[in-house]
Amino acid sequence: MDREKRLKEIVEGIEPIDGSFLEKARAHTAELVMPPRALGRLHEIAERICAIQRTERPDVSKKNIFVFAGDHGVVEEGVSAFPQVVSLEMVKCFIRGGAGINAISRHVGADVVVVDMGIVPDFEPASEEEKKIFRNMKVRRGTSNFVKGPAMSREEALEAILNGFKVAEEAIESGARIIGTGDMGIGNTTPSSAIGCVVTGEGAKVMVGPGTGVDEEGMRKKITAVERGIEVNQPDPADGVDILSKVGGFEIGGIAGCILAGAYYKVPVVVDGFISTAGALIAAVLAPVSKEYMFSGHCSEEPGHRRMLSHLGLSPILDLKMRLGEGTGGALSMSIIEAACRVHKEVMTFEQAGVSKE
Amino acid sequence: MDREKRLKEIVEGIEPIDGSFLEKARAHTAELVMPPRALGRLHEIAERICAIQRTERPDVSKKNIFVFAGDHGVVEEGVSAFPQVVSLEMVKCFIRGGAGINAISRHVGADVVVVDMGIVPDFEPASEEEKKIFRNMKVRRGTSNFVKGPAMSREEALEAILNGFKVAEEAIESGARIIGTGDMGIGNTTPSSAIGCVVTGEGAKVMVGPGTGVDEEGMRKKITAVERGIEVNQPDPADGVDILSKVGGFEIGGIAGCILAGAYYKVPVVVDGFISTAGALIAAVLAPVSKEYMFSGHCSEEPGHRRMLSHLGLSPILDLKMRLGEGTGGALSMSIIEAACRVHKEVMTFEQAGVSKE
Repeated sequence: MDREKRLKEIVEGIEPIDGSFLEKARAHTAELVMPPRALGRLHEIAERICAIQRTERPDVSKKNIFVFAGDHGVVEEGVSAFPQVVSLEMVKCFIRGGAGINAISRHVGADVVVVDMGIVPDFEPASEEEKKIFRNMKVRRGTSNFVKGPAMSREEALEAILNGFKVAEEAIESGARIIGTGDMGIGNTTPSSAIGCVVTGEGAKVMVGPGTGVDEEGMRKKITAVERGIEVNQPDPADGVDILSKVGGFEIGGIAGCILAGAYYKVPVVVDGFISTAGALIAAVLAPVSKEYMFSGHCSEEPGHRRMLSHLGLSPILDLKMRLGEGTGGALSMSIIEAACRVHKEVMTFEQAGVSKE
Repeated sequence: MDREKRLKEIVEGIEPIDGSFLEKARAHTAELVMPPRALGRLHEIAERICAIQRTERPDVSKKNIFVFAGDHGVVEEGVSAFPQVVSLEMVKCFIRGGAGINAISRHVGADVVVVDMGIVPDFEPASEEEKKIFRNMKVRRGTSNFVKGPAMSREEALEAILNGFKVAEEAIESGARIIGTGDMGIGNTTPSSAIGCVVTGEGAKVMVGPGTGVDEEGMRKKITAVERGIEVNQPDPADGVDILSKVGGFEIGGIAGCILAGAYYKVPVVVDGFISTAGALIAAVLAPVSKEYMFSGHCSEEPGHRRMLSHLGLSPILDLKMRLGEGTGGALSMSIIEAACRVHKEVMTFEQAGVSKE
């Protein structure tokens, strides 16, 4: 099927969250046996889940985290502290359950799915066990260096978004009630910064940060790469596919598609840190209403992240000076989101508890 | 046994956390398969738990939350939006599992113990089931109005602290690996503010906030009550028992004792919001080294809370605009603390994962 047409269908199929459930949920919060809205943001979170899921009983018990992996031609500009082979090595580590995202996901009760969106090496998991948590959705073996031309073709950008949509769609069809985005890709704070600049209108000096830990010279190289990439490719800020194709990455496209799937199927999406939020910016350019389905899991240490979040109108749930990616901040915040839903469903009303209201 | 002497023994029995385990833990964090300290505060939390528990394998799986309840003579000054009977009504609600702290504790896997430290009505739970989560440690049926004289005698203050110590001690002996403090007591932001003023040296206008939701007139009454209480009673800022007896509350004494028990038995203590932090101030005046065992669960919406936390050198884990008390913020943050411990124990090293370090 024509990819351009399929994406248009998806975008047109996304509906706003349901205000009537928001109102019902707020009325219920006012009855809970505590001072008015005394649990602050927990109430806001639970109420929005009600409006997203069209329910009075918000449920996020079945959780999925997608770690989208991809490689980046722009690493040849010297923008990362780690060699490119680490993308593959970390994919293997995820599959063995040994990374940060695995530990945190086990803690919050989330299933992890690792998605190869376009790392350079070919990879297939060895055992049946490993195959269960890995999906091969490779678009190409790494993007092109966007300093010299588009990172990928328009057709590849569409493919990346639709691949991300598909893996999330399958999880939702299998019962996922909340999904979270994550990333792995050496060099991917550079395309994320470029996307941030294009969508928010901010300059590279504001949007670029140290990523996994480059020094001052590395920072200068990143800023130059972002500035040149935008100058050379002239991405159209009103066209999410164009931005992704010019200065993006395959895993960032997967993240954008995953978020669109949540919005399309009325499932809340927890967006992780800097790279995931770049994906969210792409999703929001394509379908502004998708923002209503997004939660920001945490505030990254990457300095441009706050600027991206304010553009999306999102306020992070956690602020713990994390800067790992992989979906770790999103997964960790799912525990808070679940607590919010349990408070909403399990706390007695003043009447049930027999407590005086004044 | 002489209470003054018993408290002195406890205070003298509290040792600093173990720096050698802190160093070992930091060395282990540096080996985890991620950029250096990429999970930010999660590493700091896990490392301090190692140094508190004297272990390389930090464990907070068995969790206890203590909700200390007490009533306050100062309510006759018109300092609360709710009637005093609500303290008892909420104790009953906790025992039935219907309050915010119950929902959040179930979510994080913590056991709740409700402790009557001195609410006005006599109360005993009806069923065997209810008796398991309730402890009668009543010092007296509510404090005296501290605007007119001391809230309690010195002997009662000692009793409150030792009662709090005792209930925590029992839980620790039954295997609790992390404990959290909570409170219930209509009017208790007023004594907490007074304690905050005495210990930090801040004025009542800075330290007093709206509590459960008093209006401007109520705020003026609270400020006046705090100022008069301090003027009339002249608490000694260097003597925690004196401060508690002059302007405190029975549940605040219980909280202070509970924190001392954590420090004494080398168990981390999660301090909840404004009232619990007032208890932490008392504990820190009595035994400054007890601060090393404290975690601040969340930042309360009560404006004086940040000032208290900075006096203790604590940085809150969560900031979700909560202002309920009951231990809710502390309990919720236990989920983050447990995630931190799991990351420390479960994430592979670079070597184990076969990932290139540079």
